[in-house]
Amino acid sequence: MYHHQVDIRVRYADTDQMGYVYYGNYAAYFEVARVESFRQLGFSYKKLEEAGVMMPVLELKTKYLLPALYDDLLTIKVTIREFPKVKIRYEYEVMNEAGQLLTTGETTLAFIHKETRKPVRMPENMANLLSPYFE
Amino acid sequence: MYHHQVDIRVRYADTDQMGYVYYGNYAAYFEVARVESFRQLGFSYKKLEEAGVMMPVLELKTKYLLPALYDDLLTIKVTIREFPKVKIRYEYEVMNEAGQLLTTGETTLAFIHKETRKPVRMPENMANLLSPYFE
Amino acid sequence: MYHHQVDIRVRYADTDQMGYVYYGNYAAYFEVARVESFRQLGFSYKKLEEAGVMMPVLELKTKYLLPALYDDLLTIKVTIREFPKVKIRYEYEVMNEAGQLLTTGETTLAFIHKETRKPVRMPENMANLLSPYFE
Amino acid sequence: MYHHQVDIRVRYADTDQMGYVYYGNYAAYFEVARVESFRQLGFSYKKLEEAGVMMPVLELKTKYLLPALYDDLLTIKVTIREFPKVKIRYEYEVMNEAGQLLTTGETTLAFIHKETRKPVRMPENMANLLSPYFE
Repeated sequence: MYHHQVDIRVRYADTDQMGYVYYGNYAAYFEVARVESFRQLGFSYKKLEEAGVMMPVLELKTKYLLPALYDDLLTIKVTIREFPKVKIRYEYEVMNEAGQLLTTGETTLAFIHKETRKPVRMPENMANLLSPYFE
Repeated sequence: MYHHQVDIRVRYADTDQMGYVYYGNYAAYFEVARVESFRQLGFSYKKLEEAGVMMPVLELKTKYLLPALYDDLLTIKVTIREFPKVKIRYEYEVMNEAGQLLTTGETTLAFIHKETRKPVRMPENMANLLSPYFE
Repeated sequence: MYHHQVDIRVRYADTDQMGYVYYGNYAAYFEVARVESFRQLGFSYKKLEEAGVMMPVLELKTKYLLPALYDDLLTIKVTIREFPKVKIRYEYEVMNEAGQLLTTGETTLAFIHKETRKPVRMPENMANLLSPYFE
Repeated sequence: MYHHQVDIRVRYADTDQMGYVYYGNYAAYFEVARVESFRQLGFSYKKLEEAGVMMPVLELKTKYLLPALYDDLLTIKVTIREFPKVKIRYEYEVMNEAGQLLTTGETTLAFIHKETRKPVRMPENMANLLSPYFE
């Protein structure tokens, strides 16, 4: 199992007139958590794309338990529970500074070739960096 | 069962460097479909809020089957399958002009009081406008 | 002088907790006005890019006179005052349904080659479609 | 003169299909720079709003010199050149890790009362925190 967490400060741009983070904006928070978990592993999503592999999202689920508010310093915990093969599944928990669980989510992503847009396997260096967490 | 559909043109702002509509932006498309379905019924989400009832989203699910592309004229079909009580569940299908099903989604929303932020029942005038579709 | 206007409904996603359209979101409204003015001329920005020419924005100015509010049906008037050569300058006026002028703006865009990212002249077919408005 | 700077990582959500940060997204970067400059001063924009004062943007100018790209770690330098009275003017410079100046901008903001939405003077505690930089 692989875990990582990142902190994200809620921007005014993220709020809506209800005074909550707009429900569509968590997808970008989840993206930041995924990308930073890659970086922590010594991997770069940017370099992955430059090497010809893209990771489009196949599925997104989000449960909104409590609202995130303007200027909240959110902690996004990201978990990979199963060693990925042709797809990779991430789970997310969003907490505020008071430790309240605000939002849970999950995304499933594929690996595709940048030119052909056909599915490919997870790149070997990514597999090597992840595998120690699943032994 | 209640059905409605709206057309939305993909903006450049909605795309990402993959050349696809960013996965977080469908939430706003779903919002437009919900709000316009209200308007078609003779109801206004804006007036609902002015009358003290807000509808935060409790849950979002999205499946990305094929990418929506820049300048695509998307059709968003929205369906309410069950007559809502304290929650309302919407299903969405996003199609492009070629009739390809690109994305499916669903959202569950609550009714809450604007000041207390406590759950309330669906407003009666909304219930009256919806009920003919569920007889 | 070339004029065009489009209507845009303010989405909940566009608002912020002040209850106004977030100041950064007008840029996307201006983009819609530009692109639809192209379409009205019989031109497609999408096809322009497919033909290898992109139009990045060089400069943006916006004055916020009155706030645009949720669910407002905005009219965006777009004007090209001078016949463009290597750059194209657009002016915008945003009005609400009451006819109040909410926002004014202008953008200057370049024409660049998609691969080299170097400046190019305005494509000839675009020049031909625009020139009758500047005689 | 007051200076502050913040770092912002470009998200995938911020890019467009040109592979650049979408021109409308710099407004949110500028907002982060403003808010963090407040925090560095020992001031909180959130608390300002809670105390009944809001700061809507009156004017925005942005010049796009070079594109910001996905995953760039941008530095946003924010400057207040003149001691503010009824309006506050910020200047911005956006640089990438290579030290290239990508974007310059400026915004002018007002102070208004949250309920009346009428202009008010800059709050005294904010004036006190800023004044040492203008002596």
